Amino acid sequence: MDPNLEKILAPLRQEVKEQGDLVRSLKEKNAPKVDIDAAVRLLKDKKRNLESKEASLVPENCFIDKTRLEDVLKRRFFYDLSFSIYGGVSGLFDYGPPGVALKKNILRQWESHFVLEEDLLEIEASQLTLEPVLKASGHVDRFADLMVKDTKTGECYRLDHLIKNHLEKLASAKDCSSEKRQEIQMVLAKLDGFSKEELTEIVRKYEMKAPASGNDLTDPVEFNLMFSTSIGPTGLVKSFLRPETAQGIFVNFKRLLEANQGKLPFGVAQIGKSFRNEISPRGGLVRMREFTMAEIEYFVDPENKTHPKYESIKHSKLNLYSACNQMNGEQFTNMSLHEAVEQGIVANQVLAYFLARIHQFMIKIGMDETKIRFRQHMSNEMAHYATDCWDCECLTTSGWLECIGCADRSCYDLSQHSNATKVKLSANRPLGSPKQVNIVECVPQKSVIGKVFKGDAKLLMDEMANADEAKICEWEKELNAGILKLSIGEKSFDLTKDMVHIKRETKLAHVEEVVPNVIEPSFGIDRIMYSLLEHNFKIRSDNQLRTYFTFPAVVAPIKCSVLPLSNNEEFYPFVNDILAKLKSEGVKSKLDGSSESIGKRYARTDEIGIPFGITVDFDTLKEKTVTLRFCETTEQIRVPSDAVHSLVRDLATGKTNWSEAKKHWPEFVGQTES
Amino acid sequence: MDPNLEKILAPLRQEVKEQGDLVRSLKEKNAPKVDIDAAVRLLKDKKRNLESKEASLVPENCFIDKTRLEDVLKRRFFYDLSFSIYGGVSGLFDYGPPGVALKKNILRQWESHFVLEEDLLEIEASQLTLEPVLKASGHVDRFADLMVKDTKTGECYRLDHLIKNHLEKLASAKDCSSEKRQEIQMVLAKLDGFSKEELTEIVRKYEMKAPASGNDLTDPVEFNLMFSTSIGPTGLVKSFLRPETAQGIFVNFKRLLEANQGKLPFGVAQIGKSFRNEISPRGGLVRMREFTMAEIEYFVDPENKTHPKYESIKHSKLNLYSACNQMNGEQFTNMSLHEAVEQGIVANQVLAYFLARIHQFMIKIGMDETKIRFRQHMSNEMAHYATDCWDCECLTTSGWLECIGCADRSCYDLSQHSNATKVKLSANRPLGSPKQVNIVECVPQKSVIGKVFKGDAKLLMDEMANADEAKICEWEKELNAGILKLSIGEKSFDLTKDMVHIKRETKLAHVEEVVPNVIEPSFGIDRIMYSLLEHNFKIRSDNQLRTYFTFPAVVAPIKCSVLPLSNNEEFYPFVNDILAKLKSEGVKSKLDGSSESIGKRYARTDEIGIPFGITVDFDTLKEKTVTLRFCETTEQIRVPSDAVHSLVRDLATGKTNWSEAKKHWPEFVGQTES
Repeated sequence: MDPNLEKILAPLRQEVKEQGDLVRSLKEKNAPKVDIDAAVRLLKDKKRNLESKEASLVPENCFIDKTRLEDVLKRRFFYDLSFSIYGGVSGLFDYGPPGVALKKNILRQWESHFVLEEDLLEIEASQLTLEPVLKASGHVDRFADLMVKDTKTGECYRLDHLIKNHLEKLASAKDCSSEKRQEIQMVLAKLDGFSKEELTEIVRKYEMKAPASGNDLTDPVEFNLMFSTSIGPTGLVKSFLRPETAQGIFVNFKRLLEANQGKLPFGVAQIGKSFRNEISPRGGLVRMREFTMAEIEYFVDPENKTHPKYESIKHSKLNLYSACNQMNGEQFTNMSLHEAVEQGIVANQVLAYFLARIHQFMIKIGMDETKIRFRQHMSNEMAHYATDCWDCECLTTSGWLECIGCADRSCYDLSQHSNATKVKLSANRPLGSPKQVNIVECVPQKSVIGKVFKGDAKLLMDEMANADEAKICEWEKELNAGILKLSIGEKSFDLTKDMVHIKRETKLAHVEEVVPNVIEPSFGIDRIMYSLLEHNFKIRSDNQLRTYFTFPAVVAPIKCSVLPLSNNEEFYPFVNDILAKLKSEGVKSKLDGSSESIGKRYARTDEIGIPFGITVDFDTLKEKTVTLRFCETTEQIRVPSDAVHSLVRDLATGKTNWSEAKKHWPEFVGQTES
Repeated sequence: MDPNLEKILAPLRQEVKEQGDLVRSLKEKNAPKVDIDAAVRLLKDKKRNLESKEASLVPENCFIDKTRLEDVLKRRFFYDLSFSIYGGVSGLFDYGPPGVALKKNILRQWESHFVLEEDLLEIEASQLTLEPVLKASGHVDRFADLMVKDTKTGECYRLDHLIKNHLEKLASAKDCSSEKRQEIQMVLAKLDGFSKEELTEIVRKYEMKAPASGNDLTDPVEFNLMFSTSIGPTGLVKSFLRPETAQGIFVNFKRLLEANQGKLPFGVAQIGKSFRNEISPRGGLVRMREFTMAEIEYFVDPENKTHPKYESIKHSKLNLYSACNQMNGEQFTNMSLHEAVEQGIVANQVLAYFLARIHQFMIKIGMDETKIRFRQHMSNEMAHYATDCWDCECLTTSGWLECIGCADRSCYDLSQHSNATKVKLSANRPLGSPKQVNIVECVPQKSVIGKVFKGDAKLLMDEMANADEAKICEWEKELNAGILKLSIGEKSFDLTKDMVHIKRETKLAHVEEVVPNVIEPSFGIDRIMYSLLEHNFKIRSDNQLRTYFTFPAVVAPIKCSVLPLSNNEEFYPFVNDILAKLKSEGVKSKLDGSSESIGKRYARTDEIGIPFGITVDFDTLKEKTVTLRFCETTEQIRVPSDAVHSLVRDLATGKTNWSEAKKHWPEFVGQTES
């Protein structure tokens, strides 16, 4: 960054650093939680100050013209609001032809980069998900935002957005005193950290009303963000549309482990739709109610988080924005992953490996490397079970946008589902040398139990089968003392020694049981696509009216346009032959045989990012060559008409590139671009 | 078919034919509808008799061993009940690794065969669908099955299934008189044709009770098969999970027409999930509550249903099972499409073209040609707006299974959405020569209307803007007579001459407006996949314990296995080199380095249909060649180890095939298969 700008930022950075140091020292001293929380909140406040100052100093020309981008996206039907002829509904979008093609190509690269390269198992689980599954995962209880309702009309507002809008309006009013303004800015800065009660108090204090009607508001309530429905005609089988694809992998863990011959580590991938019933979504593809995710769950031995291919990536340098950087008021650091792992910044090799692979993937599909960073979650941001978590963020006109999460979720998910279903979700770790283990088992005396407890016998047997060693030893004591009182659900049973046999034996074990940990790279495909559109949107320096996209050929929606110079019938045998050959090579291409000037037609194909254009002209008739034009540079070369399809195929699949092609074929300067 | 069997069937065929003739003559005579309906019902009855006799005569060995197929599918995790560790729920399935790969490969072939080859536009619309959209499409009112409930427990039963099970049980009871049995068989035969009232009567007459409890049943009610949910927090934006993908295309018609530069014909494709809340689904992948569809909507000029590529397919011969065949008690006829179009059996060229393309697709992905037929809907089966409809059916162990529908839906869908939204969904047809047209317009006098009707002015202007010529002429009469009374919704307005100006002018028109018709090929991907599994499941003739699949290489889940003959470390440099090269060619392959015999390992890869296997053995060390084995024939050839990856790539992409490969490389007889 410009040293002059750094001078402006220096005092802000210093403030963050001092507050960060305070948080650290409080933690070291094991200070009371309430003090730490207060200090962390102030730290976030100062961090936000710094970041908004940084953003305000970025020169205008670093950003794209968002209005023009949005115009192209809508006009060329990359995507649009769903059901727009019915008025639409916010948060739902339909992808049109170039949008679908771009998205599919991104996903195809993803499959090749991850599923094929990493030998991942792939599954496709149901979107409709039974309530108990999402109860176990925590979504039924915790996947919620606070909202308030208009007491008369019932209109709903997301609480944090309501407060923010109200206070910002207050502060910007002319008659707002500077004291008041400062007070409001303090509240706004701390908004994310407030509890439900504190937020309620703020609504009361500032006498907030429903913006649309001026009516009173209800107290805040939690609104669960899952779409609910019921399966079957009774209405009793409650279910939800999944809020993430991951749970579909966890519930299939046993079969997937089998498919990997019972061995750790292994990874599982899934691509599919997920759903979040946002309270009032804005921001286009960035906040959708129905969206596409691509997730990987990589299961590892909890005591061995090394990765066999770590060596191949350890020297990769990434923009790492560590929790420490954030606490120190610093920018991200470009750092090798090996350094980061050695210094304990990235928790383990597996995480580091996936960060590197994510970075490679983003570059491959055409992201601007200077606009990508990996931001580590600060300890108070992470789910309590996660041990480390990094977000891959892309710089867009709306700031740094979280596109991919990469978290070490420990054994949380498998344990939760195992507890809920009593199905063991674990793997066997081979022991270096076999060892003697003592086994305690609780063997029910079926005939006695059956006679005494009849219909409840099965309940008792299940309880015994699932008991662990500690529990069995406890039971044994009670039995030895006379009677074992067992409570299962709402029932309780008295068991005597003749009903249960406690069995002890020694076995030679070759394996021991472990609950795998899971590292989860999770991709928001629509956000990735949106960032990609921003990173590749360009305006011609010599003609501000013309825009184009610089998608890499492998992800471009259409690879090649075929343009006859005019409607001359003699051109068509060549045009049709080239189109047919491109098809047979699987290269998606598009004929533009309209009567407009070649320049206008180029502009039209540039606008949707078609990288290559073949023009059939009078020289084609004479010498059987065509023009091949590259959108990004508008350079043209002259290629034999019967060789152009295989050249375009190689360009489209990334087997060769434009600079190589230029070396082989003569440059052509002829048709004008205007 | 065996002539002896035909002798048995002849009288049944004759009966169907006679009844078919009766129906035809009744229709010709314009007989009362009630008489025709009765005759059609009896015709169906006789047809069913014939078909079940035909099925019973098929020799056992024509069918596969379904139990063994299902064992393989479950054990190797092609698919399984979703959330099985939570007990699962019927109608929801998760695809495991080989299942996902097979399905994706089928879809990839579909994209290449249809989207790429036919230059279709592709879209991806939301699954969540607003209620008004599905109201207009007819699904809210008509997409329902009849069901009855247990009056005490609330358990639900699909009415037709309940009656069928009850009556079949009655008829098979030992004490059932032969009279009674005949009566029941008559009822069963006519089951599909009964009205709600008739079915209610049957439930009463046979005193049916809830099967599980013996309790009384409620009267039948219609149960809508769509999953409902609401969007946003108010609960007021009612919506459904789409029951088909098609509507997402129709509502985007305007933008798609624009994307095709306003020209007809053009086709639009969409692949995605759809949902049907079946009352009590059975039958695995055949009846799913969440399933994948691939649909094409091909929009044509209603007066021009020719297809530019018709010539290329008109000589294709398909198994056509026309409505006429069905009425005559005949089997399907193998017939050229041109003949069928000429004879009016297939309604138009566009339909014929897509039937041919569907047939090619099914063969390409590996269906057994002898087990595919195209069955025409009989006139009483078709939706009232459809002009012709053919189902592509696959013969499976559950009989002929409808996998693909191909219908001419006329202008129904576009008209419905246009009526519901008042948005014009039409295209312009260029006129051969421009013509003079008279235009009548109703021009509101805004200032007067605004003053008089205030807030309702917009309502009135919209009504005028959308009025057609006939309506305007009617209004003109009323105005001339004094006052025009307009009713809009529940409001009514009195308009006078000063408020409205009826304008007439003559224009030179170069185009005329048409509402396109649509031909819809609609693919049920899961059913196609299930049929494909059945058509390709085989048992080794020399070893009944071993099963394999004969998927074509292009759709096989994994293309190639790589097997070191033993754990000898010297094999691994070759193994790893081959694996890396296959990966870089994008060929999905699988290492099996376990210590089991090579025969057992082949069996394991055969079981999931991996077509090719590379074995690295001691000769590899000596002469740098490997064995390549073909699953279907178990033949082996010997190929240089540095050439095998490109050979497998060409085999996997269909660029070459096994018989070609055998010509180039020496046969190898060495490793045993056992």
